[in-house]
Amino acid sequence: MALRAWGDEFPRINAARLRQHLEGLSVHGRPAGGMFADGVSRLGFSDADVAGRAYVTKVMRSAGLEPRVDAAGNIWASRAGTDPRLAPVLFGSHIDSVPNGGNFDGDLGSLSAIEVIQTLNEHKIVTRRPLEIVVWTNEEGVAYGIGLFGSSAVAGKLPSEAMQREWGGVRLPDALRKIGGNPERIESARRAAGSFQCYLELHIEQGGTLEKAGLPIGVVEGIVSIDRYDASIRGFANHAGTTPMGERKDALLAASRLVVAVNEIVTRESGNQVGTVGEMHVHPNAANVIPGEVRHSIELRDLSAEKIERLGEAIKARAREIATATGTEITISKRDHHTGAPATPQVQEAIERAATKLGLKCRHLPSGAGHDAQMMATLGPMGMIFTPSIGGISHSPRELTHWQDCARGADVLLTTVLEMAS
Amino acid sequence: MALRAWGDEFPRINAARLRQHLEGLSVHGRPAGGMFADGVSRLGFSDADVAGRAYVTKVMRSAGLEPRVDAAGNIWASRAGTDPRLAPVLFGSHIDSVPNGGNFDGDLGSLSAIEVIQTLNEHKIVTRRPLEIVVWTNEEGVAYGIGLFGSSAVAGKLPSEAMQREWGGVRLPDALRKIGGNPERIESARRAAGSFQCYLELHIEQGGTLEKAGLPIGVVEGIVSIDRYDASIRGFANHAGTTPMGERKDALLAASRLVVAVNEIVTRESGNQVGTVGEMHVHPNAANVIPGEVRHSIELRDLSAEKIERLGEAIKARAREIATATGTEITISKRDHHTGAPATPQVQEAIERAATKLGLKCRHLPSGAGHDAQMMATLGPMGMIFTPSIGGISHSPRELTHWQDCARGADVLLTTVLEMAS
Repeated sequence: MALRAWGDEFPRINAARLRQHLEGLSVHGRPAGGMFADGVSRLGFSDADVAGRAYVTKVMRSAGLEPRVDAAGNIWASRAGTDPRLAPVLFGSHIDSVPNGGNFDGDLGSLSAIEVIQTLNEHKIVTRRPLEIVVWTNEEGVAYGIGLFGSSAVAGKLPSEAMQREWGGVRLPDALRKIGGNPERIESARRAAGSFQCYLELHIEQGGTLEKAGLPIGVVEGIVSIDRYDASIRGFANHAGTTPMGERKDALLAASRLVVAVNEIVTRESGNQVGTVGEMHVHPNAANVIPGEVRHSIELRDLSAEKIERLGEAIKARAREIATATGTEITISKRDHHTGAPATPQVQEAIERAATKLGLKCRHLPSGAGHDAQMMATLGPMGMIFTPSIGGISHSPRELTHWQDCARGADVLLTTVLEMAS
Repeated sequence: MALRAWGDEFPRINAARLRQHLEGLSVHGRPAGGMFADGVSRLGFSDADVAGRAYVTKVMRSAGLEPRVDAAGNIWASRAGTDPRLAPVLFGSHIDSVPNGGNFDGDLGSLSAIEVIQTLNEHKIVTRRPLEIVVWTNEEGVAYGIGLFGSSAVAGKLPSEAMQREWGGVRLPDALRKIGGNPERIESARRAAGSFQCYLELHIEQGGTLEKAGLPIGVVEGIVSIDRYDASIRGFANHAGTTPMGERKDALLAASRLVVAVNEIVTRESGNQVGTVGEMHVHPNAANVIPGEVRHSIELRDLSAEKIERLGEAIKARAREIATATGTEITISKRDHHTGAPATPQVQEAIERAATKLGLKCRHLPSGAGHDAQMMATLGPMGMIFTPSIGGISHSPRELTHWQDCARGADVLLTTVLEMAS
């Protein structure tokens, strides 16, 4: 193959084939008797996942690749460059889903990675650096409660007790063997820092920012950090008829003020930070009893770990005022913290240049969801490309990215890969 | 027996005996291995209820009464007056409890009624009017969801389908037979309006007003009306990380504002009205998902049915503003309405005079809880005497009224009965 120039002329992926592959993958985990629009349940390690992995492996082979599975079940494939001494450009995504999920979250980036390789093959373009693609295991983490499973194994960040976990009556080592992994040699899945030149991932936005702005491409600034807190409010359960308003210690009134305060504190300053109270439990939860106890979550996300830490402190200070005003006791304790990752500026610039070359407008935006890319960011440069999600809906059968936008995203991935690998 | 004067000298009940009877009744439904302070579970129609009824019947007999059970299971007993043509003074209460209830709610009024009779016997006092006491069936209504069961039957206000109900695998007619009732002749339990001169009931306050004010006696102004509403808030469930704050339709944020608004609207005007959000359900109720739907109760109580109707309208108006501000849909529909009953002014005055004669300070206050007295108010004059509840706690093993206050309440009942029956 001759190395062709691509300065003014840019190869494009085959949009019809990419769609065909997305539709082909979508049948594995589809509800019985359903259609594409009915979404998919393809939990990591499930039979649907095994079938989906077999489909993706077949597509890889049809693109001239020779897939291999590592000890963590991740599927890898490589394409040689002209200089074998150079570290490869790595790109990919995942194909597992949440229950009743959609057909684009993960699938788009995985099948676009293969499509990039096939397009280069068809155009007889050989890059200077090798290329490497990957389909990660159990990104959603519904199974075994370990999200970013495969990329965590590669980054050496799996929980130490992971192999003791059981889920749905199956031990994790057995689940791993089912997909071709090797629990005894899980450490062999690790890769060294610097073992790839950069990691790229195409993914649906899952939010509505790009669609609202009418933009086909998002350049991810980074993946947000997440702080999750448990709020516990203790009041006193008493008769809703005989307890005067002034004598009450109403845990739900206090919790409601706290929910309103979380929203107020998060939105009173500019920025992309988000704060959510998504889970609440009320006791004793009867119409004629003043609630004695309420527990609820508080989740804060932003690119800046310092900012969400500061917002958390402001919420705690407000909670103390609410406790005093309502005669309740409020405890707010941090349940967990996920460290996000900034996208590498040079990779962001390359993605932006790629979009510009293709005549596609873009904007920089954070990823509010976690991605395998944040694990790869611990080993080397990282960048992500977002495509618009209609209505900002994801983790739902209603998840939708127009075919044209899927193709545009894959074209930007291709063009970025070409620059990074040159 | 000679009719003794009681102008300056007032007979007193036997406080030690009343306590002994309250303690004697408390063992029926006491948790296994527990003590008096561990409270009681004596649900209507339960084995514990049957045992408690047998105990009360025995105490009645020891007071020289001849108890009879009506078709609704209510236990009645009469004591003749000097003028048999006059309608009797009727007084009593109930002995069923909620699960994990206390030893004073109902028990105090029931055993004090018997104690009044026994005291009159011992003092050889014969009243002009006959006296009649009653222990009502299933006041709490935990079984079969029919509160004020026995008094409703007497007032002709049982739900028409009551005898079709099943609870814990037992049909109501069978439960009724178990306690000596007669489901086939349930109508025979009805009494005519005017068939008693007045109905009196001694009961614990269940709120903390008397204890706070340091007063031993409350004169009930009336039993509150209750409006119960179901609030349903529809937002849109979406990813808590990827959905910007400005794009959210957060049903829990809207519900929280509504909870705060209910409290604000109920407390912004003076009066004894209360408003409670006691029950809330959040969907999908996950920390990382913006709540798409919340349902919660709203309960309003006040002596004035018109006032709570007006408060309900104000809450609905505020809900419309909150819906607009949060991009949610809020529906508030009335689930049920309970009509309360004012206590008869002349009976209130008689109770106040009795307390004054005994040197006991009192105050007039509403009953925020429902009582059998509200059913009797549909048939004739009604009044209630309240004793202090320590900490305002009821429907709990921690429910407590000091023995001295129990005796004071029974003395006021006795003295009021003497005036009303003279």
